Amino acid sequence: MHTTDIRVIYGDCDPMGVVYYANYLRYFETGRGELMRALGHTYRQVEDGGLLLPVTEASCSYRKPARYDDLVRLETRVTRARGARVCFAYTLRRQPDEILVTGATEHAVVSATGRPTRLPEGLRALLATAES
Amino acid sequence: MHTTDIRVIYGDCDPMGVVYYANYLRYFETGRGELMRALGHTYRQVEDGGLLLPVTEASCSYRKPARYDDLVRLETRVTRARGARVCFAYTLRRQPDEILVTGATEHAVVSATGRPTRLPEGLRALLATAES
Amino acid sequence: MHTTDIRVIYGDCDPMGVVYYANYLRYFETGRGELMRALGHTYRQVEDGGLLLPVTEASCSYRKPARYDDLVRLETRVTRARGARVCFAYTLRRQPDEILVTGATEHAVVSATGRPTRLPEGLRALLATAES
Amino acid sequence: MHTTDIRVIYGDCDPMGVVYYANYLRYFETGRGELMRALGHTYRQVEDGGLLLPVTEASCSYRKPARYDDLVRLETRVTRARGARVCFAYTLRRQPDEILVTGATEHAVVSATGRPTRLPEGLRALLATAES
Repeated sequence: MHTTDIRVIYGDCDPMGVVYYANYLRYFETGRGELMRALGHTYRQVEDGGLLLPVTEASCSYRKPARYDDLVRLETRVTRARGARVCFAYTLRRQPDEILVTGATEHAVVSATGRPTRLPEGLRALLATAES
Repeated sequence: MHTTDIRVIYGDCDPMGVVYYANYLRYFETGRGELMRALGHTYRQVEDGGLLLPVTEASCSYRKPARYDDLVRLETRVTRARGARVCFAYTLRRQPDEILVTGATEHAVVSATGRPTRLPEGLRALLATAES
Repeated sequence: MHTTDIRVIYGDCDPMGVVYYANYLRYFETGRGELMRALGHTYRQVEDGGLLLPVTEASCSYRKPARYDDLVRLETRVTRARGARVCFAYTLRRQPDEILVTGATEHAVVSATGRPTRLPEGLRALLATAES
Repeated sequence: MHTTDIRVIYGDCDPMGVVYYANYLRYFETGRGELMRALGHTYRQVEDGGLLLPVTEASCSYRKPARYDDLVRLETRVTRARGARVCFAYTLRRQPDEILVTGATEHAVVSATGRPTRLPEGLRALLATAES
């Protein structure tokens, strides 16, 4: 599991003074990007290697809102990395015992030309080390 | 069912040249906002009446990407409007027979102070006319 | 001069209940995109023709805020289209006599590989018809 | 002068693979927010104290683009803090000698009800320590 801290800015919030619902998906991108960086192979390197991981499914459950200027902690973990699919799960907390939002994304593995392909063994093994 | 057309701008797209996955949730907001306007009671009027409909769940299934400058058609319908909950479903198409993205959102009904409350009968009946 | 109407959504607004300052630049993109479409040559066609018009300068003057659910009218005009530069100016109004925001953008003309280039005569002449 | 590092995410970028022009203004918000935090008085505390600093002017000069996954460094400084106005200037760099973008914002000082007001002496003196 990887954790990354995110500061909520004004531009992320809506008239209720809380993070706009779509913007948690931006945070999730930060989470999986930093997880991969921590594993030693960034998503930019994946792309440079000729693969893309476009999102095929996303879901988000909003329990409590994150507010302007909150420093929130995002936990990201790999829930699947096999075949032609990679899945991540996310938990956003303000305090260790205060879950704000949970979510999940599912990604296809495709070549630069968009053809579905299997996860290369090296990348699969790397992501498996973060699987839970 | 309500339909609204959306023009994809550069600022909605990502380096793959397609709409960034979080931004479809912005389109969904346009869809439910225009559906309510078409019913004759805007979300701003709901707020002015002292109610809020914060999103509690959102999901999105990405089949094919919308691209820069596409004029896409978003269909929005009410799938539930009872008790203290309202649900919408969304289908985004480029052509009548070309579904790009489907999604759903679930909303709580709360007072301005955040207390869960039942959908007022007038609003419930109105949304029910768009239910399918 | 070209005019286009824009509906302010929740996702454009900030905790003050007004459009977040960066998002007016998204509206400006809609304005110049629709101006070019009205001239009969879209920006996507410019790109397909091998040219890009990246922004080199942008400025925005905020007089009064646009609010959630406002239907605002954006006027866009070409202020320069010569050599290797194109400039646009923008005026956003809620009512005919109520200016909210004014702005300007300056664009370089570059090839797909990023080399500065002169505006092709056909595009220059077309933009000149919208110049004021 | 305050410096803060920002990681460019996919969601910030456009089809050219570079940061969308409006999103640098989001980075500027992060810059001035972190500058104030470093001074010991956050913008949230300013708001809690009954004052707002809405942007009245913004400008941005784009020299070279920031790209996906770049770690860019934003320098923020106060250029004016007197009367009823506060001004910030921003310089974004990829490398110490590689300026990507420069910008400036001007802010009014208003009460929670929107009435222009003078900068309280304590806040003025604090911002003056960051003035250059």
